[in-house]
Amino acid sequence: MRAVAAATPAPDPAPRAGGPAPAVPTAGAAVVLRPLTQHQVRITGGFWAGRQSANRTAVVRIGYERLVAAGNLDNLRVAAGAATGPVRGPVFMDSDVHKWLEAAAWEYGRDPDPLLLDRIREVTAVVAAAQAPDGYLDSVQQVRFDGQRYTQLPTSHELYCAGHLFQAAVAQARCTPDTALLDVATRLADHLLATFGPGRNEEVDGHPVVETGLVELSRATGRTAYLDLARWFVQARGHGSVERHGKAPTYFSDRVPVRDATTVEGHAVRAVYLAAGAADVAAETGDSGLQDALVRQWSSMTRTKSYVTGGLGARWELEQFGDPYELPPDRAYAETCAAIGSIQWSWRMLLATGDAAYADHIERTLYNAFLPGVSLDGTEFFYVNALQVRDGAHADDERSPALGRRGWFDVACCPPNVMRLLSSLEAYLATSTDAGVQVHQLVTGTIASAHARLTLTTGYPWDGEVRIEVSDTDEEPWEVAVRVPGWAVSATASVNGHELTAPAPGYLRVRRVWTRGDILVLSLPMDVRAVRPHPRIDAVRGCVAVERGPLVYCLEAADAGGAVVDDVRVGVADVHDAQVVDEPGLLGGVTSLTLSVAVLQDPGTEPYRPVRHPESDLPAVHRREPVRLVPYFAWANRGPGAMRVWLPLAEPDRADPQLRW
Amino acid sequence: MRAVAAATPAPDPAPRAGGPAPAVPTAGAAVVLRPLTQHQVRITGGFWAGRQSANRTAVVRIGYERLVAAGNLDNLRVAAGAATGPVRGPVFMDSDVHKWLEAAAWEYGRDPDPLLLDRIREVTAVVAAAQAPDGYLDSVQQVRFDGQRYTQLPTSHELYCAGHLFQAAVAQARCTPDTALLDVATRLADHLLATFGPGRNEEVDGHPVVETGLVELSRATGRTAYLDLARWFVQARGHGSVERHGKAPTYFSDRVPVRDATTVEGHAVRAVYLAAGAADVAAETGDSGLQDALVRQWSSMTRTKSYVTGGLGARWELEQFGDPYELPPDRAYAETCAAIGSIQWSWRMLLATGDAAYADHIERTLYNAFLPGVSLDGTEFFYVNALQVRDGAHADDERSPALGRRGWFDVACCPPNVMRLLSSLEAYLATSTDAGVQVHQLVTGTIASAHARLTLTTGYPWDGEVRIEVSDTDEEPWEVAVRVPGWAVSATASVNGHELTAPAPGYLRVRRVWTRGDILVLSLPMDVRAVRPHPRIDAVRGCVAVERGPLVYCLEAADAGGAVVDDVRVGVADVHDAQVVDEPGLLGGVTSLTLSVAVLQDPGTEPYRPVRHPESDLPAVHRREPVRLVPYFAWANRGPGAMRVWLPLAEPDRADPQLRW
Repeated sequence: MRAVAAATPAPDPAPRAGGPAPAVPTAGAAVVLRPLTQHQVRITGGFWAGRQSANRTAVVRIGYERLVAAGNLDNLRVAAGAATGPVRGPVFMDSDVHKWLEAAAWEYGRDPDPLLLDRIREVTAVVAAAQAPDGYLDSVQQVRFDGQRYTQLPTSHELYCAGHLFQAAVAQARCTPDTALLDVATRLADHLLATFGPGRNEEVDGHPVVETGLVELSRATGRTAYLDLARWFVQARGHGSVERHGKAPTYFSDRVPVRDATTVEGHAVRAVYLAAGAADVAAETGDSGLQDALVRQWSSMTRTKSYVTGGLGARWELEQFGDPYELPPDRAYAETCAAIGSIQWSWRMLLATGDAAYADHIERTLYNAFLPGVSLDGTEFFYVNALQVRDGAHADDERSPALGRRGWFDVACCPPNVMRLLSSLEAYLATSTDAGVQVHQLVTGTIASAHARLTLTTGYPWDGEVRIEVSDTDEEPWEVAVRVPGWAVSATASVNGHELTAPAPGYLRVRRVWTRGDILVLSLPMDVRAVRPHPRIDAVRGCVAVERGPLVYCLEAADAGGAVVDDVRVGVADVHDAQVVDEPGLLGGVTSLTLSVAVLQDPGTEPYRPVRHPESDLPAVHRREPVRLVPYFAWANRGPGAMRVWLPLAEPDRADPQLRW
Repeated sequence: MRAVAAATPAPDPAPRAGGPAPAVPTAGAAVVLRPLTQHQVRITGGFWAGRQSANRTAVVRIGYERLVAAGNLDNLRVAAGAATGPVRGPVFMDSDVHKWLEAAAWEYGRDPDPLLLDRIREVTAVVAAAQAPDGYLDSVQQVRFDGQRYTQLPTSHELYCAGHLFQAAVAQARCTPDTALLDVATRLADHLLATFGPGRNEEVDGHPVVETGLVELSRATGRTAYLDLARWFVQARGHGSVERHGKAPTYFSDRVPVRDATTVEGHAVRAVYLAAGAADVAAETGDSGLQDALVRQWSSMTRTKSYVTGGLGARWELEQFGDPYELPPDRAYAETCAAIGSIQWSWRMLLATGDAAYADHIERTLYNAFLPGVSLDGTEFFYVNALQVRDGAHADDERSPALGRRGWFDVACCPPNVMRLLSSLEAYLATSTDAGVQVHQLVTGTIASAHARLTLTTGYPWDGEVRIEVSDTDEEPWEVAVRVPGWAVSATASVNGHELTAPAPGYLRVRRVWTRGDILVLSLPMDVRAVRPHPRIDAVRGCVAVERGPLVYCLEAADAGGAVVDDVRVGVADVHDAQVVDEPGLLGGVTSLTLSVAVLQDPGTEPYRPVRHPESDLPAVHRREPVRLVPYFAWANRGPGAMRVWLPLAEPDRADPQLRW
């Protein structure tokens, strides 16, 4: 137990070394792109400004309130000896506090509100007071399993909580005038250094995240011993640590060494958190073998184990990845936390390689796997992001999408995780190199780099035009690179009204001597797309998903007229002919799609039926109806109900579409 | 602890009152069909004789050995004070012993082997010795949670173990000269009478099965108090018993009263065991309201929650039923025990109604959901019966079908359950009424009823001809009813060579004055069928299952030539043109189907792909290959590997097959 300084230093808005971003490689790191700071990239309007605004309110108000109500802060007080009673909740309760502290720090960094800083200091003091004299910190463990440290690492989450604390401490140090949490973090990290590693405790935590945390702590403090420990934790995996506790290792990302793995498997959140940490280690140590392994794993994940939304995790059972191409829409797990971890991993791969595929996947995930995890007002959350809920679905599990979003969960990993990602969203939008600036995500905002100041204006994701105005520019030539999303096969671009060669998906790169007032315009094709699944994705065979721009759309019962959602059938032409309607009054303002579809009538009750000769004796029974599709991220904001992303095709071509894939 | 009589009375082959069958309604029960005994129905050859023979060997040898190895018998010895040490395994370990005792009793009833009787007596003595003086018996509970009785009924399985004991005791009393286990059972049942019911303990067990057990015990002993208690347990469900322990009630079949339920939900085995018990109660109490509710629930189950195999349970998560039409083939749970419970329930519904639909579903389940649960040699078992395993599927769960069958499980409910059903299979084949005899399942064997002796000869399920010869007949007219399966839409029949009116699915009923030597022949159409799923069964849209006779077929990697199983595409004509081959040397002798199919070549790696205009720029890439399909029940007897029941269609009709369902 320790006291925390009660004095309140004046806020210092200047970014510290490395700047306020969640992953800031050191100068010597093996990366080709450098992140910009929260102060260099600003979201000033448009789609994401609204999301961030709602999130700020949620962080400041309900995030704190729900930690109080769920007992997370009381747990720490009990551990500190400042309160009595048993601790409540799962073993990783502290991590929710740490994630909230991280989110609050980013919020303070963007907009320094003294009241928020007071709250941050209050919670930080509660955390600090619980720390044991030798640096150990895990309130549930300290109270519930008094004296038993690191004996049940596959399930105890002690290092998992530490990892989240480290990231929060770095955020606090980068964004606020305080280093109180950083002091807690370094004491805990020093304790880990003394405890873990070759010849000491050689086990790994069942839930990775300490790896990214240690690397960031190393970056923020300059202490390379933390990086060395992170590297050791990555390398120690896949060598039987979990199995020695009698547990099957796949779930814990401990079946094979990270360097040897060819795909992602087991618990989805664990797998992507580990991969993000390994990517940090590979970058900071220049370990190209490890980096190559991560490229392979990422490719396998996005090709065979990702939903069309970017969502990860096909199985409720143990929240795991399925086998390749096992991607059921109804029982999709697609945990919100897995989407967040995926963005973190992809971002690190993007920094290391500059490959637009990573930024493409971040975009897909951000809009369609992460964002559905939070209600439009920022206050309620999905744990599980299914791509289909049937009419009349029955559910009594708190995670079930059929119940709608919820304010908090008994296992509350997702809500504060949503908060910290939205709070630090600027960090994932743009980078710089010596050659210029790279714009990875298309937002309304400003980018202040060493070369110039850019002002971005766009109605994205509803509109495909992105306008980039240059000011405060270098006089030497430099390059603007703007990502042309993979789906934008017929984009156009111009500089000051002069058409450029039509840019292909990847990066539109314009290197020139820029002058103040120069305007680069990128125009993306916003036609409605009917998207087919790979023929091995059995669960959605014979269906299409509907996309426009970066958004995946869905059909909700509220928009299906009188039709049962599961009886709707579409043709590809129905999709291509969709009526695109801007609806400012719908779901906070969305562009909807109205389709004329076929609706099965009286599909009968016989579950299985032999095909007779000839089939023509069976009458066609359907009627045509207009239905409205809305962006998937916005579903379930008008109450829960039936929903589907994948719509069965009504009119397959005579020649087999499967064979002509 | 009690001693058991050591003397060995001479075997008494005569059936006791009610006869050796697992469900024998009393004379006053509201049933339209009466079961025949194990002695009245004999399987004398053909398909099921082989299965029963393998099973007998398994019961006698490995069943006992594995109970010894897993510690089930030791647990009882510890409870008896005859051994020391902790008890091992899950709380329901005793039930595996009881199920084995039941199987062994049926085996002894069919073929009284003195060595088997010795073994039965040995195990019975171990069970009896563990019983507490007041009748309580549950070894794990007695030792591990000493003194805590019935405090955790949602999970303790105390009444579940009792139910299995009752059924075993009834089997022993009906099939062996002993009543030792019946004495144990009645003491335990009397203890339950003193403990449970209105004004006493009013909770229900989290896992039903005590209901069927109590009704059978009532039938075997004539003590109606046991029936009253069973009725009370059925009626007490759905009134908050489980919720008072803070648990969600759906899983435990405790969300709504049985009488009000319109479908099956929650844990599949729990649901069908409860339904079977409720059917017994409805029959014995003449409760037509309860019976009507069960008719509705059964209809909902078979129409919306059953696999084409008859398998039940769509979710690994909590081994539960899914929502209606949620029937994934790859993650099918379809627990072997659920198939067994389904057969038990359907059989009781058949006795109550005489409706052929119940016998049809028993046939489908028996061949395609129950039988896959055991290896051809009877010694290894599936817990989970998936309808698809992908190439290279990864698994480390003991229940995973990708690992192949196993000798036993940590949770070993399925193996001894398989044993007791195969041991008592005769009981489910035929019934009698005052009007005559009903043949529900088509086997080679003999039926001795009050009206006549019938000798059945058939090559079923490989051949569709069933020959029934009459001997020892009454001189008055009486009726033979033979089930014509629902799939047999063009069956023919003759008596003594004279063609009868072509029988429709249901029962072929021939009432006449029969003479010794009369021969009734039923000929079923054995063409190969391509079976389509209901359009709401999303997971197998655009696929067909292949059936012939009562069997569902599948494609295993071993028979796919060089093709990846998941890349095979079939046309309906390919199925109808299948070459039917009797293969005595394959899988113990099966009829295989050889199909010419299309195989996708190079389906690419892009997981999701927009449909472009026109589609015709996409080349067809496939080759044709012959593949062999084998009966699904026989899969994974040549090692584990990829397998699928549902084969994607290669050539959908131009007019939408979905719309023309």
